[in-house]
Amino acid sequence: MTNENQRSEQMTRLERGKLALNEIDGQAGQNVIDALADIAPDFATYLFEFPFGDIYARPGLSLRDREIATIAALAAMGTAAPQLKIHIEAGLNVGLSKDEITEVLMQMAVYAGFPAALNGLFTAKEVFETLSTE
Amino acid sequence: MTNENQRSEQMTRLERGKLALNEIDGQAGQNVIDALADIAPDFATYLFEFPFGDIYARPGLSLRDREIATIAALAAMGTAAPQLKIHIEAGLNVGLSKDEITEVLMQMAVYAGFPAALNGLFTAKEVFETLSTE
Amino acid sequence: MTNENQRSEQMTRLERGKLALNEIDGQAGQNVIDALADIAPDFATYLFEFPFGDIYARPGLSLRDREIATIAALAAMGTAAPQLKIHIEAGLNVGLSKDEITEVLMQMAVYAGFPAALNGLFTAKEVFETLSTE
Amino acid sequence: MTNENQRSEQMTRLERGKLALNEIDGQAGQNVIDALADIAPDFATYLFEFPFGDIYARPGLSLRDREIATIAALAAMGTAAPQLKIHIEAGLNVGLSKDEITEVLMQMAVYAGFPAALNGLFTAKEVFETLSTE
Amino acid sequence: MTNENQRSEQMTRLERGKLALNEIDGQAGQNVIDALADIAPDFATYLFEFPFGDIYARPGLSLRDREIATIAALAAMGTAAPQLKIHIEAGLNVGLSKDEITEVLMQMAVYAGFPAALNGLFTAKEVFETLSTE
Amino acid sequence: MTNENQRSEQMTRLERGKLALNEIDGQAGQNVIDALADIAPDFATYLFEFPFGDIYARPGLSLRDREIATIAALAAMGTAAPQLKIHIEAGLNVGLSKDEITEVLMQMAVYAGFPAALNGLFTAKEVFETLSTE
Repeated sequence: MTNENQRSEQMTRLERGKLALNEIDGQAGQNVIDALADIAPDFATYLFEFPFGDIYARPGLSLRDREIATIAALAAMGTAAPQLKIHIEAGLNVGLSKDEITEVLMQMAVYAGFPAALNGLFTAKEVFETLSTE
Repeated sequence: MTNENQRSEQMTRLERGKLALNEIDGQAGQNVIDALADIAPDFATYLFEFPFGDIYARPGLSLRDREIATIAALAAMGTAAPQLKIHIEAGLNVGLSKDEITEVLMQMAVYAGFPAALNGLFTAKEVFETLSTE
Repeated sequence: MTNENQRSEQMTRLERGKLALNEIDGQAGQNVIDALADIAPDFATYLFEFPFGDIYARPGLSLRDREIATIAALAAMGTAAPQLKIHIEAGLNVGLSKDEITEVLMQMAVYAGFPAALNGLFTAKEVFETLSTE
Repeated sequence: MTNENQRSEQMTRLERGKLALNEIDGQAGQNVIDALADIAPDFATYLFEFPFGDIYARPGLSLRDREIATIAALAAMGTAAPQLKIHIEAGLNVGLSKDEITEVLMQMAVYAGFPAALNGLFTAKEVFETLSTE
Repeated sequence: MTNENQRSEQMTRLERGKLALNEIDGQAGQNVIDALADIAPDFATYLFEFPFGDIYARPGLSLRDREIATIAALAAMGTAAPQLKIHIEAGLNVGLSKDEITEVLMQMAVYAGFPAALNGLFTAKEVFETLSTE
Repeated sequence: MTNENQRSEQMTRLERGKLALNEIDGQAGQNVIDALADIAPDFATYLFEFPFGDIYARPGLSLRDREIATIAALAAMGTAAPQLKIHIEAGLNVGLSKDEITEVLMQMAVYAGFPAALNGLFTAKEVFETLSTE
């Protein structure tokens, strides 16, 4: 699938979002959707539609660049550990190397402080270790 | 100047940082340094040395990618308007287009909310307008 | 217009969002949309569609209750002064009294600290004064 | 007990706060107070007096409306998971339905981003499940 | 006035808080109180009573140490510029030197990032300059 | 070791930072360094050099005062629980009493809200209990 296809006018936002979420987050994204089923099923739809169907499917920035932005933002905010974990894995899925992700996280020390960078790095360490033992 | 040169072992961190700050932030960065002179001159040195001499000078990630990360983080945090302004200009200096910066800022709506994205977009609008009238 | 109508299946999300934004934020909301026109026109569409067409148009919570939530959140975050201003005015538009808005803002001292409450109260003071002199 | 009674001038702030905390947070609030006993017993007193004896006991806003504000603020801040849990339960105690609480949490996606809304929804899911199995 | 006196059991919290606010924040604190008069006069009372009558009046930590904590917290949070300004002046009132305040603010680069430290330092610069020209 | 020695011009920043980290954080700091070894060893070096070799080694503020600032900032931010734990222990190492640390944490209720203070106090309780059973 390419960015071009994601934006196909023939697809609904929901279809486009499902494709994008699957390409980017894989099983981890699906698990979030499943967990929403009994409490807020409409929110699962919004999650497909706006972040993935609208934003990630836009052609102006590559998925690799988008994940740099997302990993940086989530690490800097420091309030979204589960999502940071998913997007570190997503970064690997769309072409970032482990070293590039590590660079992004280290850089957050400058803007959000050493604790934000450290907590991000330890989250990455956990993701990298899980993947290498699968 | 290339990333390669920035890391030259012959340079001190301070020299490396001054080169990097100049390449990335240009006059806007220098203005921050100047403003620190009478209150915290040592902090100006740290600002050259750690963010620019240590982090930005590392070879593992391009300056363009680093500015994606910084713009995303500062917009998501929402507490660093003057620095966001400088780094939107810095992003243009190191190869990001206005449209790419706009994409990064719109994406922040997903992770930090619509106000963070809107405030970031209006900061970018101001920077773009200033530059186009110079 | 009622919540019921907003959700009319005959309307698109964009139409529904435009109606809702107009009802809730009035001119202040339109100004934000206008300001986006030259930098990120698509984002103006998203702003109509997701927050207003999807979320505010949902029937499970009154617009009055939704504005209590929004005013509380924006004041507690402390990073969204322009949006807080708009939503204090929006709160008045959908049935909150000045005193109720003041109560919500005072309560934020408990959860986000006295500075967050004070900054929120002074924003409200400014909005109330502007409205009373129109 | 009514708001009216809570403000009785005959009661001290401490008595009024104890009544309010008990009505709103029930056992969960008491557990927090108990846990403070050996490290900061005076802080337990302040917790009764200011948030509950002063703020929640004020007549200008119903307890139901106050809990909308608190749930929204805590979810948006993203740094107060234990307190969000307590206030989701408190919201149910003072008249909010599970669906209304879910609406408030979904709405936080607009103002604080999807991770804040998701983390809030999963906290609510946990509270709702615990209560339904008691 | 000493900490000892502040805690006099003969004084009400309000009286104790007024004395403490006057000693610590001086005219700047009084201006905040005055500005609250027409929007939330009860909140002015709470501001005297809880932060100043309860917390600052406690004997376990000197006012100088308390202002180190407050300046650090406000600079790190980055959402309370008006209050940071008042407490930098308050720090000078209760015995901190300009250099000590500058050290606290520089240290925030480690925990909250360079933008938080820079914004704090420029706030301090403004306060120091205003005071030196009075 | 004294502050004076830490700043010895004969030492490198790295040596100075290692001495300072050891004095301040002891084993807890070393554990963080060790955990970084396989993911970001350079970041361990930066952690010695900037926060400890540059900032904590400066003579203008005592280590005791510096830990007041750090504990306040980390508790107020609410996004750095592991680091707050380490610095509560560090505070005890450099001369703060348990009661003084408790005062700093209670005071954060004023600036960052009751949840920030409560979460900080419960972290302190855990540290104090661990130390008393060693």
